[in-house]
Amino acid sequence: MTRSVYLHDIPLAEAQHALQSALRENGLWAVLGKEELPLSQHLAGRVLADAVWAINSSPHYHASAMDGFAVRAEATSAAMPTTPVALQCEDDAKYVDTGDPLPGWANAVIPIENVEALDTDGNMAKNPRAPQQVRIRAAVVPWSHVRPMGEDIVATQLVLPAGHTLNAFDLGAIAASGHQTAWVARKPRVAILPTGTELVPIGTPLKAGDILEYNSLVISGQLQAMGAEPMPQPITIDDLDLICQRVKDASANCDMVLLNAGSSAGSEDFSSRVVERLGQLLVHGVAVRPGHPVILGMLKRDDPLRPMIPIVGVPGYPVSAALTVEIFVEPIISQWLGRPAAQPESLEAAITRKTVSPPGDDDFVRVVLGKVDGKMLCAPISRGAGVITSMVRADALVVLPRGVQGVDAGDTVTVRLIKPRAELEQTIFCIGSHDVILDLVAQFLAAKGRRFVSSNVGSQGGLVALRRGEAHLAGSHLIDPDSGEYNIKFIQQYLPDVPVRAVGLVMRQQGLIVAKGNPFGLHGLEDLTRADVHFINRQRGAGTRVLLDMHLAKAGIGHSAVNGYANEEYTHLGVAAAVASGRASCGMGIPSAAQALGLDFVPLYQERYDLVIPHRHAESALLQPLMDLLNDDAFRKAIEQLPGYDTGVMGKVTYES
Amino acid sequence: MTRSVYLHDIPLAEAQHALQSALRENGLWAVLGKEELPLSQHLAGRVLADAVWAINSSPHYHASAMDGFAVRAEATSAAMPTTPVALQCEDDAKYVDTGDPLPGWANAVIPIENVEALDTDGNMAKNPRAPQQVRIRAAVVPWSHVRPMGEDIVATQLVLPAGHTLNAFDLGAIAASGHQTAWVARKPRVAILPTGTELVPIGTPLKAGDILEYNSLVISGQLQAMGAEPMPQPITIDDLDLICQRVKDASANCDMVLLNAGSSAGSEDFSSRVVERLGQLLVHGVAVRPGHPVILGMLKRDDPLRPMIPIVGVPGYPVSAALTVEIFVEPIISQWLGRPAAQPESLEAAITRKTVSPPGDDDFVRVVLGKVDGKMLCAPISRGAGVITSMVRADALVVLPRGVQGVDAGDTVTVRLIKPRAELEQTIFCIGSHDVILDLVAQFLAAKGRRFVSSNVGSQGGLVALRRGEAHLAGSHLIDPDSGEYNIKFIQQYLPDVPVRAVGLVMRQQGLIVAKGNPFGLHGLEDLTRADVHFINRQRGAGTRVLLDMHLAKAGIGHSAVNGYANEEYTHLGVAAAVASGRASCGMGIPSAAQALGLDFVPLYQERYDLVIPHRHAESALLQPLMDLLNDDAFRKAIEQLPGYDTGVMGKVTYES
Repeated sequence: MTRSVYLHDIPLAEAQHALQSALRENGLWAVLGKEELPLSQHLAGRVLADAVWAINSSPHYHASAMDGFAVRAEATSAAMPTTPVALQCEDDAKYVDTGDPLPGWANAVIPIENVEALDTDGNMAKNPRAPQQVRIRAAVVPWSHVRPMGEDIVATQLVLPAGHTLNAFDLGAIAASGHQTAWVARKPRVAILPTGTELVPIGTPLKAGDILEYNSLVISGQLQAMGAEPMPQPITIDDLDLICQRVKDASANCDMVLLNAGSSAGSEDFSSRVVERLGQLLVHGVAVRPGHPVILGMLKRDDPLRPMIPIVGVPGYPVSAALTVEIFVEPIISQWLGRPAAQPESLEAAITRKTVSPPGDDDFVRVVLGKVDGKMLCAPISRGAGVITSMVRADALVVLPRGVQGVDAGDTVTVRLIKPRAELEQTIFCIGSHDVILDLVAQFLAAKGRRFVSSNVGSQGGLVALRRGEAHLAGSHLIDPDSGEYNIKFIQQYLPDVPVRAVGLVMRQQGLIVAKGNPFGLHGLEDLTRADVHFINRQRGAGTRVLLDMHLAKAGIGHSAVNGYANEEYTHLGVAAAVASGRASCGMGIPSAAQALGLDFVPLYQERYDLVIPHRHAESALLQPLMDLLNDDAFRKAIEQLPGYDTGVMGKVTYES
Repeated sequence: MTRSVYLHDIPLAEAQHALQSALRENGLWAVLGKEELPLSQHLAGRVLADAVWAINSSPHYHASAMDGFAVRAEATSAAMPTTPVALQCEDDAKYVDTGDPLPGWANAVIPIENVEALDTDGNMAKNPRAPQQVRIRAAVVPWSHVRPMGEDIVATQLVLPAGHTLNAFDLGAIAASGHQTAWVARKPRVAILPTGTELVPIGTPLKAGDILEYNSLVISGQLQAMGAEPMPQPITIDDLDLICQRVKDASANCDMVLLNAGSSAGSEDFSSRVVERLGQLLVHGVAVRPGHPVILGMLKRDDPLRPMIPIVGVPGYPVSAALTVEIFVEPIISQWLGRPAAQPESLEAAITRKTVSPPGDDDFVRVVLGKVDGKMLCAPISRGAGVITSMVRADALVVLPRGVQGVDAGDTVTVRLIKPRAELEQTIFCIGSHDVILDLVAQFLAAKGRRFVSSNVGSQGGLVALRRGEAHLAGSHLIDPDSGEYNIKFIQQYLPDVPVRAVGLVMRQQGLIVAKGNPFGLHGLEDLTRADVHFINRQRGAGTRVLLDMHLAKAGIGHSAVNGYANEEYTHLGVAAAVASGRASCGMGIPSAAQALGLDFVPLYQERYDLVIPHRHAESALLQPLMDLLNDDAFRKAIEQLPGYDTGVMGKVTYES
């Protein structure tokens, strides 16, 4: 059988509609079932299948709201400061603790501190709670300091509607209204079948071509957060019959099957054939990015009560998989639980970078969010469908809909929050040059309640972003080839109108990152011209590249003489990874990046890495923990454990405008 | 031993500081401990105790990003549409599936749809994935369609900082970076000891004076949501020695003890004595409302590793208890887990009602939130510390700080959200007259993704609120004594400038709610003047009161002739509860309220209950489900099962301006 090479993608809304129609036809666009559970059984997060109506009133009697004396209000009406009224205890005044029922004859409570508790002889009673009489110097109105029956809940009233997701307080109200149990929607059971001969379970020692199977871990977590019960299955190799058998087996005991990977049109992508063989293929390919090769269908099974259940072919790339679950599975789970579909909070933000989008797709762009000068900004992060860390880092998604070709830097876009909004307010937005020290900064600041988000655009890019008000600070190590001074000339050039200070972070070595044992025997820039040497460069505007260019010029070496000068990486670790993989024989960078990947390092220069911070941010409460960190000994020690750093300059103001 | 009757309340900040200092002195203001758990063990929601640094890069090899042919980019540089380049398979071009490793000699992938797959004879290959040669008509740049090693994660980079709360995506990133487990903070174990002779477990048949013990249910839910492990204990009666023994026993196996109730200064309030006997009493009484009688202290125990643990005496009223846990316990749990303290999202809203506040206290006012005409409004709800439903209904808290005596209607206040903001956007704000039908409306609308929040201020109050733009609609049944017409005159009077429509909801009976069997033999308003009859009235502005006043005037009965005319309740069910409890012998109301509490009803009049809706709201998407509901047969049938309603008028426009 020949497989079609191209997928025929249909629009997202159409795909969702096709699945929903099939579910409706099969009576599966409704609550799946319910169960009665004791309130004590951790019901927070569960969804009510039935409305809760009150059996009891609460309080179910007239209760004293204070420690004091129950009285008839009418008996106090003549009481005045100068002409007190005395009430005999037990008959006309009775001591009650808070919560005690009022005697049948009483209709008010006087707090104990407002009476004089006396013995028969008129002296102060020994025990103020058991006097013979009480003297009162002010009248009280009926029902004062009483919690009347039904104050909280009146029997038969609606306590909570069906479809409500329970929280801790709800459990109390349900109990107070006379119930010991609640009827909640049963959790939908969702089987997750990872398929692929190349997959290996987490923890397996890896060889080239092995792919760690962690999608079922992520999908399980997503399903649990939705209120479903994940049923992860073992990995199945690429064998059509075997996959069919496993799907059949799983479908007997669950409400939905997620068949992970094998959903595109590659040579070993069996998912659509599985669905065709075992049921009905509804959709193969959806115009959504990331996510394209989604499969939607219905599975036949031997259960006469529910002869069809849905199956979703989830793409293999982790970001595609996660988004497919959010887009296609969540609406089904919410229907099955009877709760409203998830409504991510959305807000408006200015996008910091021009972003192109395939016009035929609904494009889900991951962004980080931060508030700078009161303005919400979103910075797009990696677009790669294979980059799970983009979901970890993402604060929100921007959907560029079908028909839109992209947005320009500065455009206002609507973002759908993934992280809680309150967390975003604590975000320090750092942009500019990359250094592994910034990972340490993030780690230390997290402990102080700040999120440190760094975006790597090179030193010059960072200064430009500061000028545009798109970051709180920039990391910069730009050398002026004429003076040998760091950063000052560039700050004056890029930020003439923004009062800033440059604060030293570290002095660091720069040099050549080379393979273990330095197999090419590299010693300086002159070696870069050798025909057998492939260089990997940093991007335009990176301080490391400025440094390289200065020294190449000094040495009289033209760019075209350097094999690989045009190949760019955006971070020191990117350069190190290129060397580690053999893609390049060397690159310019810092020793900690070399050490990170077990490479060798040829030191050439020492340079200063500054943080450039506008005064208005440096003095803000938001940045205070960062400023404090520059005087933190633990932080200093953590840096000094990395090779090639000198912290003598840390916290010193190197320039001020 | 004599107990002091008055508590000496100290300010909230001072109380928190005292507890925090004691914890610091005992080394307990830090992470309690950590445990290594497999990633597969539902770690979402747990807090990382150690930072996660990458062991592996991901991908750990150069991986093809497409199904296609791996090539050397240099070999394609001459390819043009008219002068294709042919590459021999296996040596110069090798088929790879997505995710396959690149051969060592390759540095780019050409997607399969961009090549012509040929046999040696130049014909199209039978199997496009196993041709003899491929013909290429465009050059490719190095590393195109390749996921380079480390694209997602570079070995040794920071994946996640300590103190981070894990989500589903994080689990994937940790696995991708080479870990099978994570070190997470161990869950703090918190014992909850309910004390009080008056307490009975939920499910017990109630007699007067019994108090249902549901605080441990609520507190358990709160603790779980914070990431702690609740250890609820059985009820202990008010016996000092017994309570001491139970606290001692519990403290041996937990990290903190919550002693519920017994914390005020009543005759049987032992908590402070327990703390004094078993350890150190730090604070007794905090100037916070609700919550006053909070106790904070440290317990001694026999564990040399941790000889002191904290104990919190939690007040008995459910709202006080819940707030005490949020205010005093949450900050400790967050320290013990190593995560930032909970940061409720806050926003500004206009308060709809003048609200007074004791100037000595930090006053936590529960409010509901809704957006009307784009303006966020908050309406205070019940202040009673015993009203757990106020926490169920509350969307947010407004803190009126110590020193503030209150706020005026219309003042802007800062609210701390309890419910997700997205939920608030779906809120329909109804204000005005109460009818039990509104519970049914809420129940039906919940299923359609709308929150229906009704605030009972009487019919006139509702119209006033509409004029102020403080609600989407009002329920009204105001009769004009002159014309006998409903609502029209009042709409014209109160809303001269707001174009509205009045839509019929129901015709309903009004009459006297009387005890079962009508023991007073009441038949009409003339009976209200009898000396043995105690009436319970509705509040000024209520439609029911207008109706009563009209008929009293017609009958020539003065208000002073009605015994109890001045006693007011705010809802029909409140009136019914007053009759059920014997507090009143009758009240005017609707039969469903009588039936709800098993009372009898003397029908007197029939009246029309309308929904008054400004056009701009009636036509909004927000209210669409409500407008639809007025034509919903299932809703009509549900109403007709209640006594005394006629739905003939439902959905009919009775007036339009």
